[in-house]
Amino acid sequence: MAGEYQRLRRRATRGPPVANEAVNGDDTAVYTRKTPQQQEAGSEPPSAAVREVGRRQREPYKGACAGEVYLIGGGPGDPDLLTLRALRLLRQADVVLYDRLVAPAIVDMARPDAERIYVGKRRDRHPVPQEMITAMLVRLARQGKRVARLKGGDPFIFGRGGEEVDSLLADGITFQVVPGITAASGCAAYAGIPLTHRDYAHSCVFVTGHRKANGELALDFDSLIRPGQTVVLYMGLACVAQLSAGLIAHGMAADMPAALIEQGTTGQQRVFVSPLSELPQQAVVHAVRPPTLVIVGEVVRLRERLAWFKPAATAGRSK
Amino acid sequence: MAGEYQRLRRRATRGPPVANEAVNGDDTAVYTRKTPQQQEAGSEPPSAAVREVGRRQREPYKGACAGEVYLIGGGPGDPDLLTLRALRLLRQADVVLYDRLVAPAIVDMARPDAERIYVGKRRDRHPVPQEMITAMLVRLARQGKRVARLKGGDPFIFGRGGEEVDSLLADGITFQVVPGITAASGCAAYAGIPLTHRDYAHSCVFVTGHRKANGELALDFDSLIRPGQTVVLYMGLACVAQLSAGLIAHGMAADMPAALIEQGTTGQQRVFVSPLSELPQQAVVHAVRPPTLVIVGEVVRLRERLAWFKPAATAGRSK
Repeated sequence: MAGEYQRLRRRATRGPPVANEAVNGDDTAVYTRKTPQQQEAGSEPPSAAVREVGRRQREPYKGACAGEVYLIGGGPGDPDLLTLRALRLLRQADVVLYDRLVAPAIVDMARPDAERIYVGKRRDRHPVPQEMITAMLVRLARQGKRVARLKGGDPFIFGRGGEEVDSLLADGITFQVVPGITAASGCAAYAGIPLTHRDYAHSCVFVTGHRKANGELALDFDSLIRPGQTVVLYMGLACVAQLSAGLIAHGMAADMPAALIEQGTTGQQRVFVSPLSELPQQAVVHAVRPPTLVIVGEVVRLRERLAWFKPAATAGRSK
Repeated sequence: MAGEYQRLRRRATRGPPVANEAVNGDDTAVYTRKTPQQQEAGSEPPSAAVREVGRRQREPYKGACAGEVYLIGGGPGDPDLLTLRALRLLRQADVVLYDRLVAPAIVDMARPDAERIYVGKRRDRHPVPQEMITAMLVRLARQGKRVARLKGGDPFIFGRGGEEVDSLLADGITFQVVPGITAASGCAAYAGIPLTHRDYAHSCVFVTGHRKANGELALDFDSLIRPGQTVVLYMGLACVAQLSAGLIAHGMAADMPAALIEQGTTGQQRVFVSPLSELPQQAVVHAVRPPTLVIVGEVVRLRERLAWFKPAATAGRSK
């Protein structure tokens, strides 16, 4: 079985044995990260402040009560956008389950002895099924562990957080939810594009690029096209052409300014602004890759003046 | 050249750091808060971790560069939802200008010797005019100071952050923007109401309760009423009756679940769920006061199961 092969290969190539206990007693394939000490290279070690926040909560877990799950929003990319509460709970956790879009520097803020489990997309591009993740959370919590379930962005905005805690409830597991800076908020701030503005936008709408069974984009274009409304498309790079064509077909001006924000808030952030009609072309010309957020609306014009963040990695490349 | 002049002027006026120098040389009335040491009572002193984060940036300001403004989102209420970056810049600031909705505990995270200036609504209920705030920011930055402009929520989502930094730019002032957890995100997490959910909502729209000149609510009800869309109304307690009537008149089900979230994420949080048609009545019966966020949509049903946060101050009171 391909899955079995990959699992063995992964373990074989992982290097020296890892102190982390394996939690996939059943047939679940998960990545177990090395502890920070074992990593040759990587992000910087937690700062003194980060360590101090953790120290306050680092007493060994004791007592007869069951474990708990912390559903934590890891924010849009910049590890510095983690909240104090997220950091505190992360430092408190015995186990960390994290997604692909969580910055390694954030995972490294967990306790050095905390087990780290990657549950994002595997190399074969298939995500770990949601039921498997839930099953792991339940099992770990029942073992009395404090489990940090770390997701990119905000767990309750396109983060499937509701579905996940709902499943935990069914199994009687206690949980807490920590909101994170959602991609729209983080990318807007770092790209210099206010989502609302007295002169340009009085509402903003967040949609996602998922498709219906027939392949059509599941978007209600009519409701998106409103004067003074900013449209933010999450996870929509693959359907930028359909978004652009659909909005224009339903009456949005072809020259409405639009922005592609790739790896927003990080040192690799790239922002490309163009008229809505040229958005698909921009994505191709600049070989834009996920994670990319799309913002459409008059507010995008403001970037020309308000852009302040100069990501080191792409200085001179982005516009 | 104006730019050159401003630069020279900035250098000339910067001088040595001044402790709590009065900045309202003109006729602007502002509140200057006492430093924490001067306050008899107040929130707890910054924790060791908070102090440590600040210490790293607490070297005296030196060098020939001009001042800078940090536009910081202070989040929805819980001081623990501040981001690491916000805390770091706040600890770096020589002066803090803060709004009414910023928790005192957050203002107290500033350096003990930092000047604190309240620019929210005055006792006579008139807010400090925006031009006056901008003028203060410009003046302080030109004095070479690092100025933290602290706002509730996220500065780029109904925070007027775009307008504020635009004015700074006109005066050649350098700035940075720190996104904050927006009220929708924070209140949703702490109220147990996911804004999106596979089975209930694929989009969410943020609107505000501002009125047009004729007193009508400036809302495009048609675009709000879409299947699978969550509607979040910011600053809308005063117009809850109009919202409810408007949505129902435009076709939304009268029994669509809706929530009033008062002082969300804080120890005083109260949440009242009712059918949309009864929302205005709820506000009256429970004497709900601002800040209150309104969420309308199928996702509100989930609160019954997902509510996890038990604010100490209102245990047994809220439902």
